[in-house]
Amino acid sequence: MKTLLIIGIGAGDPDFLTVQAIKALNRVDVFFLMDKGASKDSLIHLRKHICERFIEQPGYRFVEAECPERVRGVADYRASVVDLNQDKQRVFEQMVHHELAEGEVGGFLVWGDPALYDSTLRIVEDIVQASPEPITYEVIPGITSLQALAARHKVCFNSIGQAFQVMPARRLAEGFPEGLDSVLVMLDARDTYCLFVDQEMDIYWGAYVGTADEVLIAGKVGEVAEEIRSTRAELRERHGWIMDSYLLRRRSADEA
Amino acid sequence: MKTLLIIGIGAGDPDFLTVQAIKALNRVDVFFLMDKGASKDSLIHLRKHICERFIEQPGYRFVEAECPERVRGVADYRASVVDLNQDKQRVFEQMVHHELAEGEVGGFLVWGDPALYDSTLRIVEDIVQASPEPITYEVIPGITSLQALAARHKVCFNSIGQAFQVMPARRLAEGFPEGLDSVLVMLDARDTYCLFVDQEMDIYWGAYVGTADEVLIAGKVGEVAEEIRSTRAELRERHGWIMDSYLLRRRSADEA
Repeated sequence: MKTLLIIGIGAGDPDFLTVQAIKALNRVDVFFLMDKGASKDSLIHLRKHICERFIEQPGYRFVEAECPERVRGVADYRASVVDLNQDKQRVFEQMVHHELAEGEVGGFLVWGDPALYDSTLRIVEDIVQASPEPITYEVIPGITSLQALAARHKVCFNSIGQAFQVMPARRLAEGFPEGLDSVLVMLDARDTYCLFVDQEMDIYWGAYVGTADEVLIAGKVGEVAEEIRSTRAELRERHGWIMDSYLLRRRSADEA
Repeated sequence: MKTLLIIGIGAGDPDFLTVQAIKALNRVDVFFLMDKGASKDSLIHLRKHICERFIEQPGYRFVEAECPERVRGVADYRASVVDLNQDKQRVFEQMVHHELAEGEVGGFLVWGDPALYDSTLRIVEDIVQASPEPITYEVIPGITSLQALAARHKVCFNSIGQAFQVMPARRLAEGFPEGLDSVLVMLDARDTYCLFVDQEMDIYWGAYVGTADEVLIAGKVGEVAEEIRSTRAELRERHGWIMDSYLLRRRSADEA
């Protein structure tokens, strides 16, 4: 029997690792790395640093995969992700087949939490179902970038008794959800918050939260949007990549 | 200067504690406990167990507050919470004033994450603003019951590229949100999922997730709602309290 562990390692700060994740790291024989793009070196470095810091027995090994890239700029986002995941699945399957021996434990280190805008879980599920040999797998949650963001800004996700929505920025471009006052936005490459500069809303924005490069900006959207936009462009230029997110909250009638 | 730490301790399993939270625990001189209701003994026991397990130096102490209760069954939920928080704030203020000396660190141990349906952060902010003496405070995120739920069911919060909503059950009673396929529901005392038994939806339900008492049920809502309802009633009776949550997901056209 092979075992796969999908381990949420938190977003940025190695101190975000849970005791459960540390125990899981210590069970792993082979770590599968499959980072891509401009952030690749930073993310692989972070994962190796986490292993060095938290694993007590040497003997684990890393396998780096050639990572397929999503075709960008296509009309059907979902289809492009499904295609990408099928490519990834083939790469993962080969790795699990060739690099993991019977009785061994393979580990996937997922930035943040595997439940939040990450494809590893779906891919592993497909591999397990398609595998001729039995494979068990477990999921370990981790602190998301949104939780790190809220903690650093000292804000709650929700107003009292209210719902809130979590979304990729492309959804926010379609408009602020009806009847809600709070949205958490990830993956915004197009400064979508700038659509709301004339509204009575506050934004709590952060980049590289939990790391030494952390930058936080908060205020009324109309007053800080330009600062966020220029800061974001400058950071992206300097680091070669950016990981940011924000909370956008409509002011209640008595605050507006 | 006094310091307050609002520490997310995760939901249920002490192994959900992060390294950051453990470091924070070890800075605290006084832990303020303010649990209430039927779950009070279990929650205080869990908090004391966590302190015993993770704090290296003895010498910390606990202060238990008389906790005000929210007036139930009133028409204006938000107003009743605001009233309760004002009562809590007075109790917290007294505790911080009388029980925490200059230079000491006070700790609040928050179930799950302080950013998610918890009032501690708002109350501490009000105390800090109203305090004649300067008080600093920090927030440490923790694994929420929703993350524990998703990990145990091995599901993602979101479908590919889609938004999702997090809500108290009273909001779900108003209807499944337009244009979304996934909602995460907390605090459901009235089996609100039963409203959707004739719809093409799946439910991933869990109670006491991450603890020895964990119970998980998943399936098509129409097929498992009655099992969840009766299990929930039985567990609540047996334990005297229940903490449960669920993910409700509309099937896409090709799955339905």
